[in-house]
Amino acid sequence: MLGARSFSSPIGSTIHPGGSNCTKGTARTHRKHALRRSQQAAGAHQLPSAQAAESAPAPSKGTCFLVGGGLGPVDHLTVKAAKLLQSAEVCVYDDLGAQGPLELLPPSCERVYVGKRGGKQSIKQPDIDRILVELCSQGRNVIRLKGGCPSVFSRVSSEMTALTAAGCPYEFVPGISSALAAPLMAGFPLTQAHIGTAFAVTSGHDLDQNWAAFAAIPTLVVLMAGRTLPQIGRKLLDVSWAPDTHVCIVRSAGTSEQQIWHMSLASVIADPPKEDLSPCIVVFGNVARLGLHDGSV
Amino acid sequence: MLGARSFSSPIGSTIHPGGSNCTKGTARTHRKHALRRSQQAAGAHQLPSAQAAESAPAPSKGTCFLVGGGLGPVDHLTVKAAKLLQSAEVCVYDDLGAQGPLELLPPSCERVYVGKRGGKQSIKQPDIDRILVELCSQGRNVIRLKGGCPSVFSRVSSEMTALTAAGCPYEFVPGISSALAAPLMAGFPLTQAHIGTAFAVTSGHDLDQNWAAFAAIPTLVVLMAGRTLPQIGRKLLDVSWAPDTHVCIVRSAGTSEQQIWHMSLASVIADPPKEDLSPCIVVFGNVARLGLHDGSV
Repeated sequence: MLGARSFSSPIGSTIHPGGSNCTKGTARTHRKHALRRSQQAAGAHQLPSAQAAESAPAPSKGTCFLVGGGLGPVDHLTVKAAKLLQSAEVCVYDDLGAQGPLELLPPSCERVYVGKRGGKQSIKQPDIDRILVELCSQGRNVIRLKGGCPSVFSRVSSEMTALTAAGCPYEFVPGISSALAAPLMAGFPLTQAHIGTAFAVTSGHDLDQNWAAFAAIPTLVVLMAGRTLPQIGRKLLDVSWAPDTHVCIVRSAGTSEQQIWHMSLASVIADPPKEDLSPCIVVFGNVARLGLHDGSV
Repeated sequence: MLGARSFSSPIGSTIHPGGSNCTKGTARTHRKHALRRSQQAAGAHQLPSAQAAESAPAPSKGTCFLVGGGLGPVDHLTVKAAKLLQSAEVCVYDDLGAQGPLELLPPSCERVYVGKRGGKQSIKQPDIDRILVELCSQGRNVIRLKGGCPSVFSRVSSEMTALTAAGCPYEFVPGISSALAAPLMAGFPLTQAHIGTAFAVTSGHDLDQNWAAFAAIPTLVVLMAGRTLPQIGRKLLDVSWAPDTHVCIVRSAGTSEQQIWHMSLASVIADPPKEDLSPCIVVFGNVARLGLHDGSV
């Protein structure tokens, strides 16, 4: 019966950083619900057991660490990410908010740049997937360093699929996401009891979305909105939002290049900043007024 | 004219960690848009200039660092948070996912616990605000350590207001939020091109929300849903979601106590896990199927 259907997680073991020190997780079925208690390195994954039976990972394969580089500066890296970078054999990296994380790599570390040039992906995603699989298959532990957090617009699922298919274990290392941290850098939290108890996060690359749904939530965070900002503002205005709804744009959050604009939704449409805004986070919603500290807006 | 209204940020200076090394930011007006380029310690705030004129902060006042403690284990702290804790004079702290961050405090550090006992706030928010102001007014630099990230359901705005009113400078230090990281710990990102390019985040404490709006977005992340999980499931089902929509519950994400459940929306309603699920993150949406790795669902 569908109504009582439950799913079981095929994950049965966890991998410690370095890939050499495996600990079996306690996999136990709790009534109809599958339950996994991971012992230490939560977020580490191996092949599903069904696939593992067909093609067990060779012991010589390295682990791929899918690491969030945060906002750019080392201060905003996690301790775990910093440790991994400091002992890295090879690092496959995207464009980052700042070069800080790369400076942690030891001289012996091979560096493979797979970011964008001129706004375009210079190496296509399937090629990145192949690079990761090839390096792991050589028995090397690979740092796949991405800006922000792998959870948000990192295109990590393609890499997960390729690594899984090749029998290469991988582990997620979360990072500070500018979606949540850029507002703090601009002086306000994303939630506040009286102004907004929920928020949505989306990408400005896709204008064909349900803007009415976003507009029914107090706060909207848009990543990669540098080129579509006025159009997004227009969509929110058209579906219901007031022209004086507050908007805060944070460019290069948390870096020495950080810039902040405060304006109204109407201004975003009629007279947006003329500068190149990328990379930026745009917060639509009156919670951003808290960034002005004096409640003047 | 409202349509062209723009807002200026009153923030004119930034404060370095330790509060002793101030750098003036370059405040420049860019056409009608206010623009702030912060030089280094982005996220630091002083009094609005208008208020500063009335009551300039005494030089002896300490800085309050509003620090995200992340998931609990030190590995998931940021480098900056770890440094601040290691040199802390006094730390005012909430319940944390794990005690790791507190172990970084030097023996000389005064510890002030202001978390919840028995699910209830043992010290009320105005009292926490007063404690922070009092400590900063003594000239001490205060670490206000919160679980997760101050950006998300941290009730930080009350502390911001109190500190500002008392002329105490403060600085945000973002942390890893379980809203984004718990999915990674369960093996999946929150966004994926074909399954979900947007998500919403809310709290399970408030059932009187626009669930139809949430249901029109591919993925919903609910914090603090341990006690209201079946009711939330019912609301999403009633407004449009399919009974076989995937749900993943992650309890104590990233700690040694981590537990994960995968089930359908129908199961969440009819037969939710019987354990105490708090603290948990619940992801409603089929992107959570990626956590099963084999696409079997």
